[in-house]
Formats: sequence, structure tokens, C-alpha cells
Amino acid sequence: MALNKQPYRGTRDFFPKDKRVRDYLFSVMTKTAESFGYESYDGPLLEEVELYKAKSGEELINEQIYSFVDRGERLVAIRPEMTPTLARMVAQVHREQSKPLRWFSIPNLMRYEKPQRGRVREHWQLNCDVFGAPGRMGEVEILQVAVELFENYGANNTHFEILLNDRAIVDAVFKSMMKTTDEQTYRLYKIVDKAKKVNEEGLKKMVGEVGLDSAAENIFYSYLQLKNFDDVKTFLTNNGQQEIADLFNNFVEQTKKTGLNEYLTYDPTIVRGLDYYTGIVFEIFDKHPDNRRALCGGGAYANLLQIFNEDQLSGVGFGLGDVTLKDFLEVHNLLPNLEIPVNDVLITFQEDDGLDASLKLARSLRKKDLKVVTSLDALKFKKVFPTAEKKGVRFVTLMGSDEMAKNQIQLKNLATKEQHSLDLNDLESILKIIKA
Amino acid sequence: MALNKQPYRGTRDFFPKDKRVRDYLFSVMTKTAESFGYESYDGPLLEEVELYKAKSGEELINEQIYSFVDRGERLVAIRPEMTPTLARMVAQVHREQSKPLRWFSIPNLMRYEKPQRGRVREHWQLNCDVFGAPGRMGEVEILQVAVELFENYGANNTHFEILLNDRAIVDAVFKSMMKTTDEQTYRLYKIVDKAKKVNEEGLKKMVGEVGLDSAAENIFYSYLQLKNFDDVKTFLTNNGQQEIADLFNNFVEQTKKTGLNEYLTYDPTIVRGLDYYTGIVFEIFDKHPDNRRALCGGGAYANLLQIFNEDQLSGVGFGLGDVTLKDFLEVHNLLPNLEIPVNDVLITFQEDDGLDASLKLARSLRKKDLKVVTSLDALKFKKVFPTAEKKGVRFVTLMGSDEMAKNQIQLKNLATKEQHSLDLNDLESILKIIKA
Repeated sequence: MALNKQPYRGTRDFFPKDKRVRDYLFSVMTKTAESFGYESYDGPLLEEVELYKAKSGEELINEQIYSFVDRGERLVAIRPEMTPTLARMVAQVHREQSKPLRWFSIPNLMRYEKPQRGRVREHWQLNCDVFGAPGRMGEVEILQVAVELFENYGANNTHFEILLNDRAIVDAVFKSMMKTTDEQTYRLYKIVDKAKKVNEEGLKKMVGEVGLDSAAENIFYSYLQLKNFDDVKTFLTNNGQQEIADLFNNFVEQTKKTGLNEYLTYDPTIVRGLDYYTGIVFEIFDKHPDNRRALCGGGAYANLLQIFNEDQLSGVGFGLGDVTLKDFLEVHNLLPNLEIPVNDVLITFQEDDGLDASLKLARSLRKKDLKVVTSLDALKFKKVFPTAEKKGVRFVTLMGSDEMAKNQIQLKNLATKEQHSLDLNDLESILKIIKA
Repeated sequence: MALNKQPYRGTRDFFPKDKRVRDYLFSVMTKTAESFGYESYDGPLLEEVELYKAKSGEELINEQIYSFVDRGERLVAIRPEMTPTLARMVAQVHREQSKPLRWFSIPNLMRYEKPQRGRVREHWQLNCDVFGAPGRMGEVEILQVAVELFENYGANNTHFEILLNDRAIVDAVFKSMMKTTDEQTYRLYKIVDKAKKVNEEGLKKMVGEVGLDSAAENIFYSYLQLKNFDDVKTFLTNNGQQEIADLFNNFVEQTKKTGLNEYLTYDPTIVRGLDYYTGIVFEIFDKHPDNRRALCGGGAYANLLQIFNEDQLSGVGFGLGDVTLKDFLEVHNLLPNLEIPVNDVLITFQEDDGLDASLKLARSLRKKDLKVVTSLDALKFKKVFPTAEKKGVRFVTLMGSDEMAKNQIQLKNLATKEQHSLDLNDLESILKIIKA
């Protein structure tokens, strides 16, 4: 029986035209991160499951990770996210590194998802993180990195927005203002996470089950009504949370000076689950009506190294997946056309005995950093230009019997249609035209 | 209990300085492959185990692959090699693609190995393959790619050599000259594979067990004595294998014209196991006495698409792992020093209220494609230059109280020690100096 030619469910084959798109996505990520002095790192594909148990949500461990027992009886998993690996690596070296530590990575990650639009089992994710930045500057900078990344793809504030919250605010509202128990806090976080996905009735039902008194319930509903930074400030101040209000206000003022404010909107429903986060949390949303989805999520965390018995080191970071990013760029028509490759020269010969001279020329041109596609057998004249088009070259060389007799080639510029007869050994003239 | 900070056995954490080395290795691979017009592809991390059962060796399936049953009851494996994925992908598209098809990839692969020098469980491997090339030109070109790759790392024929054989020759010797049965052929392939690792006695013992007649045994030992292309030609001709001799000779002649001959040595013990190969097989060896190892292996295969019920499409390719490559470059002192990153400018301020102006300047410089590291709080003068050194910048800017009063910065070139007082808003002059 013939084998299946399709990739494993939820994964993708990247044929050259698909790989060029991925390479483009990654090159803009790398360029942006490096423009802020972030340094690239990577970790292993497999980690011991213990690492994820310590910090990741239960749903991830029980339903989504690809875990198995290796031949040495270790319970391991294909990495479903990068942050635990990052924490493990930072825990090894943070003491001897100057701060802030700015790192980025673009790993492939796997989760056992039901494949659907924007959701696959293997995806790549840009992770940018900064550790040990002073005050709230890490949070400001990481938002800057995210914004400049989108700007470098050609996007602006008509295309995306950043919905933002502060876990310190959420904690103040729940614990200080509403006097919730730990159990109630935990349940309210889950409710807030779902608040946008349910109707009013559904929300009331969930909140009713938490067992709050009516004063606390009222505070909770008022909190969910907050729509902008001024709302938040007034709400916190009126409820005796001046210190939290001031800290958040300092952050907001700094984002204004850094030109981020045109992208930022306060959103009380952004909490990013229960994991990691202790400060600012945010999600970048596509504004396109056909693609109203989170493209990127992140936030600040103070205690990531605790599981390794290391001193506290504050950090902030975000993750951005390749699948939702590609959908975003496509829906806004921001993706360049990468159907065909980009090469410099196609070397062809029209008589069988032109092979050796052609290969020699190709070799010389490659040594001058040109991308050279060679025809490995005689190519009929009428096939030269269709081949050149498929290969995305700017120039072709031809060598028929006339040229061979004179030890020449024809060099043709495909854009200008200019054609030159040149001596086969006159590499200088050939290069001058190609590199002009 | 604190969690383990070390990576899973046999895998590596790539801290920024390690990742820079990997990026360098990959960039030369990509540049070389693209200089021949090879197009980059990638496939999934997981494949169904069936795919490997069809073509990979038993040892791989039984002892080395990371396989497990997924949550949907599929038996899958983390890819241990790229060729089966490549075959699956080529089988999907080869009919509508113009030939030759030139593809390359640098996937991460996993095998359950006992970690030792040059051998880890997760490694990266450059795979270059060409399909549908005329005659033996695919074999010639793939050797050219491999050689130019090593040359692009700065290596030459004092550093490495290519040991080469032709499976057509091995088959002719075994089946036509020695009249071996299939079972004997299979066993002889295994013996040849091990011939260099055992002594004469051990070899005789293994050969004795195959049950050859003495004429066949003599042919086998004569075969193992062949040391160069002329030897092979004479041996084949004298034993009635003129056609095979001529075909191989054509190939050898073409390698000479292509400048490959300085690297090539005939080696009868190179057969590359039993998988895939039907034509030229080769291994690139490090010549350094401390590192006598194969760096790269490859060969030509005619029937890779058969398992998908597709028409025959000849191909030739090689794989080159990152671990042995790095050892090779290190032992020959060919690896550039990548301890520190490369950035353009470090922006610093010496008084707290210099933050906003500094961030604004950083933002403007990043928009001009510079790599800009910012200090996020006031940096004492004596710390500026040590920080600049760690960040690998060419320039630093300073802003103390004097500069702030005049709305200026000091811009210092770290190589020439030249220093300029410039207006903070005079971006043009700042850029002129940095980009000079």
C-alpha cells in the first residue's frame, strides 16, 4: 500500500513558496528584536514535564502537551511554549549577566489542538523578553518592541490595537476592594478571562456562583465597565487605591512619551489566565472585522525563577505566533508576493558542448556572491525565458554555436531587455553589468 | 524541591553566544545553497512512524527514534532525519515542477543516542538535494555544493577530503563478479560498512561467515584494496565490467572539469548503509588527526518516491550536522569569535531626567536600520564603556547635565576615540557619523 503523502494532522509542509513567507516573517522579527539590542537564544525541543507542571496551566498539561516516556524512563514533552525553557536558561546565567537582559527566540512549539483557522498543532512563536529593567521601563520597552514589529510589517493603528491591563489593578480590585478569598479570586480570574465570550445572563450566572456579597458584586460589575485609562484612575482613587492608581498612571505617562498611546486601550477583561503574570498584561488585537483575534499576548512577571530557588528577577515578555500573524498580514494585504524565488543569473547553453564553459562561468559568478542557477543540459532558446521567470533571475546568459565559436556569451537584462555580447573570460565586464 | 536547571540529556541550551555560532553556521549554509539556486523548504517536526519504516534502517526504528502514540492513537515520531519528509513532500509536487528541483533545509532532528563527542540527541542538519538532473550532473553538482560550503567556511583541501564510491560499482562487484545471493549481498554491505573499524583478523572472520567460494572471497579482498580512480577502472575492466567502468569514468572526468578532483579520493568502504542509495555515495572527512570523522554524508538515489506509488525520479543529496561541523571548524581554528554581539549604538544618559530624550533618539536611530541598545536608567560615566564593550557597539552617546542644558549629546566612536558634541535633534549629523 502506498504511504500517505500528507503531513501529520495539524502540521504544515513548507514548500519553497511557503518557506519564503515564513522566512520573511522571521526576518522582520529578527530585525526588529535586534534593532533593540535583543540577543537571539534557543533551547531544546524536549523538556522534562516537571518544568511545565511548575508554571503552566492544568489544561495545557492534561489536554494539550505532547508528552511521552523516553527510552530512559523520563517523562518528557515537546515544548508547548518557550517561557519555561527561558526561565530555566535565565536561572543558569542571570547572576553573571549585566541587566537588563534582552533575549528573543523563534522556536517551533507543539500543542495537541483541534486544527482550525489560526490554530495548528505545530507553530512558530516569536518570544521577546527583558529581565531586570528598572521600574516599569521593561513593560514600556516590550510594548515598543511589539509595536515597532507590527510597524515594520507595514501595519499601523488602523490595523491593530493593544488591549492592556495591570494584574496589580486586578488584584487590588479583588483582594483589597472586594475582599475576596483566594478561592474566589481564582474563580473571578477565570470569569474575567471569559467575560467577553458570554452574554450578560451567562456572566451573571457565573458571578452569582462565586458567593460574593452584593457590595463586592457591584464593585466587580463596575470594574468590568472600565473603558479607558482615566476611568481606571478615577475608579481606583474613589475606592482608596491611590498608590495603585499612581503606579499605573506613571506607566501610562511613560507610554505616552514613547509614542505608544495611539495603540493602547485599557481593557479590564485582559488578565492572561493565571500563569506567570504579576504586572502589565496585554494582547494585540487585529482590528479587521473578519479577523477579530488576539495576535500576540504578553505581560510582566516577578517570580519566574522561584521554581529554581533563584532570587527574584522581574521580567516582561510577549509571544507572537506565525499562523495568526500571517492571517493578519493577509487580511490587510500587507504580505509581499513571494511566489517565486529571487536569484541573480540563469546560465544556459544551447549546444551540448557548452556545459563545461557554463559551469565554469557559474562558479566564477558564485564566488562574487551572486545567486546563480545553472542549466545542466542544453536549453532550447524558447525555454530560456520561461525558465528565467520561474527562477526569478534578473539576468540570463545564452551560448549557442555562434557564441561558442567566438568564446562568447550573450548576457541579457530581463527588466531592460538590454543584451550584450561578451567574452566568456571577461568576468570583469560581466560583473559590471550584473552588479550595476 | 527546586527544579533542575540543566537541559534534557543530549540536548543543548543555546545562550546568545552559542546561538550566534549556530546562526553563523546556518548563514553560510543558506548563502551557499542559495548561490546555487537551491530553495529553502521545511516539514513538520512529527511524522507517522510508517514513513520511517518504509526507508530507514531497522536500528533507527528500533533503537533510535523518539516515537510515541499521540492522543488520537497515531504512532508518530520526532523526525530523526529529513529525507523521508523530503520524499513525501516531493511526491506531492514533483509532477508540476520544472526540473532539476533544487531544495535545501536546516531542520532540527532527534535520535536517542548515547551522548558523546560529536553526538547529541538533538541536532540540526543541512540537507541539500537535487531531483531530476540530467545524467550524472546532479551528483557532480551536489559535490560542488558541499565543497563550496566548506570553502565558504574558509576550509580547503588541507582540512577535508571527500571519500567516494558508487553503489553501481559495489553492486557489480558483488552481484555480477562474485555472484552473491541477496542474503550474501546484504551481509557484505554490512561488512564493508564496518571494514575500517575492525582489524584484518576480525574482517576475515566476518567474511568467512558469509559462505563465499574462494574465488569470490579473492575478488572481495581485491575490491577492498582499491585506492584510487585508476585502480577502480582497471579492476572493473579486467573483470568484464566495461560499461560500469565507463559510466564511472564519465563521472570522474566531469568532477575534474569542475575542479572537484583535488578533494576526491576513491574509497571502497564507503557504501552508506543499505538505505536509499543507488549511485554515487560519499562522506566528507576531517583530515585533522584529532578529529578523523565523517562530517557529511550523501549520495544518489533513484527510487525514493516509490513508497508513494509515484514514478521514478532520480535524486542526489547530502546531510551535514551542526555538531561535527562546529568541531571541525574549531579544531582548524576556522570559527570566528562570536563571544559578544554586534550592535551599532549604546544610548546612555547620566542624569535621571535624560530618559525621555534618550528613548526618543533611540527610536529615531532604529528607524534608520541601526541596532540601538538603550540604557533604561541613568548610567554612571565609568560604567558606560564597560557596558559598550559587552554590547559590541561601535558608538556610544552620553548626556550629562551640561549636555542636557544645551540639548546636546556626546557621540563617541569607540574605535577611533573621536568624540562630537551634537544637537540632540540634528539626526542628520548623528547618522552621518554613525553610518560613515
